[in-house]
Amino acid sequence: MTLHDSYDPNNIFAKILKGEMPSIKVYEDEVALAFMDVFPQSEGHTLVIPKLVQARNLLDMPSDYLGQYMLKVQKVSRAVEKALTPDGLMVSQFNGAPAGQTVYHLHFHIIPRWEGKPLGRHAEGGMAKPEELEPIAEKIRAAL
Amino acid sequence: MTLHDSYDPNNIFAKILKGEMPSIKVYEDEVALAFMDVFPQSEGHTLVIPKLVQARNLLDMPSDYLGQYMLKVQKVSRAVEKALTPDGLMVSQFNGAPAGQTVYHLHFHIIPRWEGKPLGRHAEGGMAKPEELEPIAEKIRAAL
Repeated sequence: MTLHDSYDPNNIFAKILKGEMPSIKVYEDEVALAFMDVFPQSEGHTLVIPKLVQARNLLDMPSDYLGQYMLKVQKVSRAVEKALTPDGLMVSQFNGAPAGQTVYHLHFHIIPRWEGKPLGRHAEGGMAKPEELEPIAEKIRAAL
Repeated sequence: MTLHDSYDPNNIFAKILKGEMPSIKVYEDEVALAFMDVFPQSEGHTLVIPKLVQARNLLDMPSDYLGQYMLKVQKVSRAVEKALTPDGLMVSQFNGAPAGQTVYHLHFHIIPRWEGKPLGRHAEGGMAKPEELEPIAEKIRAAL
């Protein structure tokens, strides 16, 4: 697998976009979809993915679509901050497995940080349960 | 210090933009400046900052300027990848000290990753020397 492989239309996020996989959505419009990461590194860990184009990562994202997508990343970042009032917010995007990418549809992570609270996988090391994520998602939706 | 403090025009990146502090530049146009991080977390660690506006972070970045700035982040990311052919590329942006931000002028980090090579501060724990960074910067410039 390299940084220049072609887009696989059967990746998990493509399936979420097609409604073939569930997700806990916080925002959706014609440009982007935002939903809760099921392996949250902190409370409120949210992902934003583009809808209009098939891009594996930032490198192959068509430039014509990048600006409007980033506006949604910013919009959701502001809502996460407003909803959860963290002390900080990490915004990151990984290209390729050695950089931490696990799903090959372009996505930005929005990860709230609190003073003195280290990042970590979900407490039980597995997927977060919908009933844990839904109340957080509701706060973010309300801030949008 | 909070996520909503106002912009301090005397931050280090503002001084770099004004030419009051040196930097090893790889790209500059009217929209953005890209230069080598002097505390590289890996070979080729590059920063891209907006020039047209005074923004502390992604949250207070005026939306009208975000798209064109992100195109420069993408452009430099592609050049870093082309120049150094890493196995992966982390692109990250930190809002607030608890998220890892140390300079309060909006910037995206572009951090090349190689399989099996962990991230780390500069070997000696201090600033990288210009003579170490310059050959890397030259490769990136050549790829732009």
